Amino acid sequence: MRTLYHFWISPACRKVRLALGEKGLKFDLEIEKPWERRHELLARNPAGDVPVLVDENDIVLADSQAICEYLEETYEDVPLLPKDRIDRAETRRLVGWFDRKFFFEVTDNLVEEKIMKRLTKSGTPNTAAIRAGHHNIHYHLEYITYLVERRSWLAGDNFSYADIAAAAQLSSVDYLGDVPWEQHPTAKIWYARAKSRPSFRSILADNLPGMPAPSHYADLDF
Amino acid sequence: MRTLYHFWISPACRKVRLALGEKGLKFDLEIEKPWERRHELLARNPAGDVPVLVDENDIVLADSQAICEYLEETYEDVPLLPKDRIDRAETRRLVGWFDRKFFFEVTDNLVEEKIMKRLTKSGTPNTAAIRAGHHNIHYHLEYITYLVERRSWLAGDNFSYADIAAAAQLSSVDYLGDVPWEQHPTAKIWYARAKSRPSFRSILADNLPGMPAPSHYADLDF
Repeated sequence: MRTLYHFWISPACRKVRLALGEKGLKFDLEIEKPWERRHELLARNPAGDVPVLVDENDIVLADSQAICEYLEETYEDVPLLPKDRIDRAETRRLVGWFDRKFFFEVTDNLVEEKIMKRLTKSGTPNTAAIRAGHHNIHYHLEYITYLVERRSWLAGDNFSYADIAAAAQLSSVDYLGDVPWEQHPTAKIWYARAKSRPSFRSILADNLPGMPAPSHYADLDF
Repeated sequence: MRTLYHFWISPACRKVRLALGEKGLKFDLEIEKPWERRHELLARNPAGDVPVLVDENDIVLADSQAICEYLEETYEDVPLLPKDRIDRAETRRLVGWFDRKFFFEVTDNLVEEKIMKRLTKSGTPNTAAIRAGHHNIHYHLEYITYLVERRSWLAGDNFSYADIAAAAQLSSVDYLGDVPWEQHPTAKIWYARAKSRPSFRSILADNLPGMPAPSHYADLDF
């Protein structure tokens, strides 16, 4: 059976969960706490992080984008990249935007400080970082608004890895209740459409004991 | 004419310069200082960073990995990814390793603190970050050693985007004279082989007035 080693709040892991779900591929989820540096994790991925996907035939894959490109080349029935190579470049540009720019400007400032530091007992939240995350998220929601005012989905006519990368980041931050949806109604409509897809179900069911999600988190009609 | 907007010390830009060079594609280089946030740069890439490649027919591309994947799909004569999809995933895993892990653990700590803060007049170098960069680089050179003891090049039999991503990072740090080559002779031999390739020539010719490279930087027989 296909197994995804993941940590539930990690946006990179959520990206792969969404990709597998969109492609209709069944998988088991195994929770991995990368900070425990388990020998088995390091053997599968010397970088010591998740996601790690063990596909059929024991093929071991690491790095969320390497996994997504592999899934695209291996399971072609449900494409998550456009056919045209210029459209593909545009989609990958946006994947890079959310995987890195959004992550470092927003997710890392909020999820790392508010959740990960508590779980890993690695210090107190940095309030300047949290303030920066709250400030920066508006710019990204404005960019999403700009894109979906011009296109059906973020990278063009079809739901793609760009939407998956963006929704993965936003869903992590939304678990904290830190996405100012009301101030960005167009971005909210896009997210509601993404969130309604069956691939999103397991992510909306995530719940950490002692750290519950806000009530709108799993609500499709939020 | 194809034009690459770049900043000379940026490893992401060096990665694209090497990719274009390996594929035998001619290009003009235009220096862009992203911190000046020129209107023309933002119009081409809303993320406001480099590299930005304007390919033939005025196709505008941003994000180093999106550009590299586009080049691979467009100019197929000189492949920089293997044919097999599992080998491709391994190559992309290593690209991710050097683009992100090496960058944040090493390059960002050294190049950002020692060069970029001076150029952008954005504060004094953080000595703790510099110490971390000097500490972390050993682990990465050991990983390169581990790989090339088992393979001809980092990802397998052939020179690939994995070697390009790694050499791009290391060349930026090497400009500072901060790579402890003598303690990692196997990694040094791999880098000497990479550095001898014609695609490397323009990178070895880089020289910032007032901030010269150490003498071994451009020496193929260092």
